[in-house]
Amino acid sequence: MPLGGLGEFGMNCMAVRWGDEIIVIDGGLMFPEAELLGVDIVVPDITYLVENREKVRAIVLTHGHEDHIGGLPWILSEINVPVYGTEFTLAYVEDKLEEHGLLDEADLREIRAGERFTIGPFTLNPIQVTHSLVDCVSLAIHTPLGVIIHTGDFKVDPTPTDNRLFDLHAFAEYGKEGVLALFQDSTNIERPGYTPSERAVRRKFDEVFAWTERRLFISCFSSSIHRIKLAMELAYEYNRKVALVGRSMADSAEIASDLGYIDVPDGLLIHPGEIKNFPPQKVCVLISGTQGEPMSALSRAAVDNHKHAKIENGDTVVLSSRIIPGNEKAIYRMIDHLFRRDAHVIYEDGSHPPVHVSGHASQEELKLIINLVKPRYFIPIHGEFRQLRRHAELAASMKGSVGQVISLESGDILEFDEAGARKTGRVPVGRVCIDSGSRTDVVEDLVIRDRRHLSEDGIVLPIIAINKLTGRVETAPEIVMRGFAAGEDGFLPEARQVVLQTLEGSSDEEKADYGVIKEKIRQDLKRFIVKRSARRPLIMPVILEI
Amino acid sequence: MPLGGLGEFGMNCMAVRWGDEIIVIDGGLMFPEAELLGVDIVVPDITYLVENREKVRAIVLTHGHEDHIGGLPWILSEINVPVYGTEFTLAYVEDKLEEHGLLDEADLREIRAGERFTIGPFTLNPIQVTHSLVDCVSLAIHTPLGVIIHTGDFKVDPTPTDNRLFDLHAFAEYGKEGVLALFQDSTNIERPGYTPSERAVRRKFDEVFAWTERRLFISCFSSSIHRIKLAMELAYEYNRKVALVGRSMADSAEIASDLGYIDVPDGLLIHPGEIKNFPPQKVCVLISGTQGEPMSALSRAAVDNHKHAKIENGDTVVLSSRIIPGNEKAIYRMIDHLFRRDAHVIYEDGSHPPVHVSGHASQEELKLIINLVKPRYFIPIHGEFRQLRRHAELAASMKGSVGQVISLESGDILEFDEAGARKTGRVPVGRVCIDSGSRTDVVEDLVIRDRRHLSEDGIVLPIIAINKLTGRVETAPEIVMRGFAAGEDGFLPEARQVVLQTLEGSSDEEKADYGVIKEKIRQDLKRFIVKRSARRPLIMPVILEI
Repeated sequence: MPLGGLGEFGMNCMAVRWGDEIIVIDGGLMFPEAELLGVDIVVPDITYLVENREKVRAIVLTHGHEDHIGGLPWILSEINVPVYGTEFTLAYVEDKLEEHGLLDEADLREIRAGERFTIGPFTLNPIQVTHSLVDCVSLAIHTPLGVIIHTGDFKVDPTPTDNRLFDLHAFAEYGKEGVLALFQDSTNIERPGYTPSERAVRRKFDEVFAWTERRLFISCFSSSIHRIKLAMELAYEYNRKVALVGRSMADSAEIASDLGYIDVPDGLLIHPGEIKNFPPQKVCVLISGTQGEPMSALSRAAVDNHKHAKIENGDTVVLSSRIIPGNEKAIYRMIDHLFRRDAHVIYEDGSHPPVHVSGHASQEELKLIINLVKPRYFIPIHGEFRQLRRHAELAASMKGSVGQVISLESGDILEFDEAGARKTGRVPVGRVCIDSGSRTDVVEDLVIRDRRHLSEDGIVLPIIAINKLTGRVETAPEIVMRGFAAGEDGFLPEARQVVLQTLEGSSDEEKADYGVIKEKIRQDLKRFIVKRSARRPLIMPVILEI
Repeated sequence: MPLGGLGEFGMNCMAVRWGDEIIVIDGGLMFPEAELLGVDIVVPDITYLVENREKVRAIVLTHGHEDHIGGLPWILSEINVPVYGTEFTLAYVEDKLEEHGLLDEADLREIRAGERFTIGPFTLNPIQVTHSLVDCVSLAIHTPLGVIIHTGDFKVDPTPTDNRLFDLHAFAEYGKEGVLALFQDSTNIERPGYTPSERAVRRKFDEVFAWTERRLFISCFSSSIHRIKLAMELAYEYNRKVALVGRSMADSAEIASDLGYIDVPDGLLIHPGEIKNFPPQKVCVLISGTQGEPMSALSRAAVDNHKHAKIENGDTVVLSSRIIPGNEKAIYRMIDHLFRRDAHVIYEDGSHPPVHVSGHASQEELKLIINLVKPRYFIPIHGEFRQLRRHAELAASMKGSVGQVISLESGDILEFDEAGARKTGRVPVGRVCIDSGSRTDVVEDLVIRDRRHLSEDGIVLPIIAINKLTGRVETAPEIVMRGFAAGEDGFLPEARQVVLQTLEGSSDEEKADYGVIKEKIRQDLKRFIVKRSARRPLIMPVILEI
C-alpha cells in the first residue's frame, strides 16, 4: 500500500504487510504549494498505520532526503517503532528527531548495504546504489511469496565520487533467481539516455575555480555531499578558505565529515564571521538556498541582507542544483538580484560541462535495472501521474523482461498471493498539514492543521499594497480576520504594527520579492499571535502589486 | 527610451525621438503574475508618450505577437496615431481593435519588407526575418546621426516553412555601411548553439500522424501559423478532417488562410460540432490552450468539460509549444488530466525529433547578426535582467564587431549625438493593470486599475476550502470585503450564492485544479458585482486546500 508519493511529488511512504505484520518503507514530507501557504510542511495521512498500530513492526529507510525521511517526527510521534537506516541516513534522522525532542525515545537501528536483517516474516537485503546523496540503498524484501525490490531513489553512476559502486551484481543475482515485483523510481522517466555521472560536475567546478578572481559562492542542496566534497577539495587545491553559510549546509557538512564522507584538511574551514578578514580571492563560501527559498542564506545575500555573506562586484555565484518545478520565478528573481550585484552567476542553462547533474536514473538506466531484475510484476513509484504512466508504458514495452505492469496510486492496495497480484481496494490517504513552529519546538508543537476546522483557529489575511518598481509600501497594511476573534481591543492595531515593523525592517529589494516579504510577515505575525492569543490561525499574506 | 520589456518578460515598447518627433516601436502587453490576480492584462505605463502626445508620429510594429501588439487598444485610446505594420501583423491588430470598438478611428498603414518609408525625420526599412510567427520584420531606422537597427523577435531559420528567407543580405549591407546601434532580442541568450529550423517539427508530426489510431488533438499557440499549416497539410495527407477548437485558434487560422499563408483544401475543415459524426481515425482537432490556461479549450477538454472536444481512451494529444516559466504547474496538471483520460500525450521532453522549436535566436545566431551588423553601440533588449546582462556579456566579448555595449532598463534615456551615446536620465515607466471585462466590451470598459486607490473600488476575497483529493468543497464559501461597502442587506448572501453556484456547476476535477476554479469564481463574481453595484473591486479568490 503506497501511502504517499504515487501521483504527487514528495512524501514517499509505502506499507508492506504480510498477515498481521507491517513494515513501512520511508516516511517523507512534501513542501507546501502556494495554496498551502500558512503551513510549514505536508506529510502523508497515516490513518492506516495508526489504525493498525500494533501490527507495525518498523520503518525502513532507503536514504536521507527529506521526501523520504522528513515525515518521521510526525509519524514517530504517532507510532513509535524501530527505524532502520544506513549510518549516514540515521545521522540525518538523529538530527531531525533531536530538533523535535524525539531522539530519546527513538529506536534507531543501523543497517549496512549487503547485510541482511529480519523483521517478522520479512528478510531485507539493502543493496548499495548511487544517487545524489551518499549511503543510499535499494531494498530487496524476501517475503514468503517471493522477493520484492523497492529501488528507493537511484541513478546508475559508473564513476561515483566516493567510489562506492552501484551494486549491479545484486540486482543481477535477484533477476536470475526470480523477482516477484519491482517497485522503481519514476522521477526521471521523461529523460532519454543516461544521467551523467556526478563526476561530470568536476570539470565545470574546476573551470570556475580557475578563472574566478574574487569571492566564490557555491550553492547546492545541503544534502549534496558529493558537491560539498568536491567544492572543498577544489578550494583546498586553489588555496581558498571555506566558510559554510546557512544552518542546513553547516549541519550537513558536519555529519558528512564526522562519518568520513568528506576529509576536511586542518585550517580549511573558517567561520562565516571571518569571511571579511580574508582577501576575496582566498575565500569560497558554501551557502544554502538554491531554490530561492525566501528566508534562505543565498536569497538574503542576493538582496544584501545577510550578515556575513556579502556579494560584491566581480564575485562569482554558482547554483549547482536543478530548478524544482514551481520554483522558477523565485529562482530567476534571485538570479536577477545576483546579477544586479554585478556578480557572475553560473546556473544550469544547458551548457557543457554541466554545473549540475541529476541524481535520478534516466530511461536507459531504468531499462537496465528492469532487464537485470526481470520482475514478474512491475510497479512504477515516486512520481506525478504522468510520470508513473510513462514509466508503466516503458516497462510494458519490455515484454522480454516484465511479466505484467500494474499502475498504482497512493492509497491503492496491491495484494499478492500464489495466483498472482491484483488491486483489491483502498486505504485512506491524504495530506496532513503541519505547522512546526520554530525549529527548536518540541513535538507538542507539531500542530496538525486540520483545515476542515478552520473555524477553530480561523484565518488571518494581512493585505499589503506594494509598488513593484520601487518596493515601497503604498498604503497602511490591512488585516482581515475570519473565524478568529481578536479578543482585546488593542489586538488589531498591534498586529498591524507588527506587519509595519516587518516592512520597515525589510529592504526595498526584499519588499519587491513577494516570496520573501510574505514569509517574513507570516513568521512575525505568527509569533505575535501565538504569544498574544495562544492560537494558531492560518496566516496568508496577500500582496497587491500596484 | 525603452518603455517596457527591458528587465521584464513582455510588454515590449520603445520610443525613438529626434528633436520634437517620436516614433514608437511595438506596444505589447504582459500577462499578469499570480500577485496580479484580479486583472486581465498588464500594459506599459505610457505617461511619457501621453505627456508628449503632440510629438508622437506613429507606432511601428515588428510582428503580431501579444507582447508586441497587445497593448495597442490601451495605447491608441490614449494617443491615436498611425500604426505601421506588415499585412499579417495588421490583420491581427484589426481583429484586436475591432473587439474593443476602436477599429473605425484607427489609421493602419501597411508596410512591406524591403520597402522603405518615412516618418518625420526617420526613414524606416523593414527587413524580413524568420520567427515563430509569419511576416515579421526587423527595423532599420535611418536617423540624421546614422542607422539604428531594432531586431524585433527573430531566429535565423535557414529553411522556413513558407520559404520566405531571413534577409541576411540586408543586415550585411548595413554592416558594411556602418550601423550606429543594434538593439537585439535577448530571449534565448541562455541557449548555446543554433535554434533548430521550424521544419524540424515536421518529422515529429509526421511520426505522430503515422501511428495515431484514434483522434488526434494538436495544440499550439494560435499564432504558430507554421504549425497550423503543417498540421493541416499532414491531416490532408493522412486523410483526416480538421476541426478548429477555441476562438483564438479559429480566428488565427482564418486570418492566415485569408492572407494566403495557409492553403486549406475544400472540405478539409469541419465544424467542432461535427467531430462526433466522424470516426475517430478521421479527425484531427487543432485546439488552443497549450499553457494550461484555466478557461482554455484544452484545459476544459482535459477535465471532460468541453462540449465538442471529448478526449477518450487511445486518443493522442500533442502539445507543440514551450512551457512558459511560471506555467509549469498548470501545464503538468493538465497533462496529468489528459493521461487520466487514457490519452497518449506528446509534449516537449527533450526527445528527438522535437515536438516544438523555439522562435528566438540562440547564442550562435545572435553572434551571427552582431558580426554582420558590426554596430558602434550594442544594446540588449527583450528580456529579464539576467538575460540582458548575459547578452551584454556576450556582445562585450566580441571586440572585433562591437564598439561599445550599453545596458539599459525600461525607463532609461539613451541619448545619441555626434560625440557618441550615453544614458542621460529616466522617463516614468511601470505597469498598468487593465480589466478588460468581457471580450466584447468597447473601449470605455478598459478600466485602468490604479491599485493605489484600492479604497475606491475595494477588494473582495472569496475564501473556499477544497479537499484536494476529492475536489469536494468542505465548508460554505466565505466572502471577505475591504473598502467595498456591500450596499444592501441581501448582497453578501447573494454573492455567496453566486460562488456556490459556480462551485456546483464545476466538476470535481475542475475544483481540484485551483487555477480553473479561481478563474471561474472570479469571472462569475465579477459579473454579479458589476451588475449589482456598477463597481469593480479587485476579486482575489483564496483557496484553502484541506
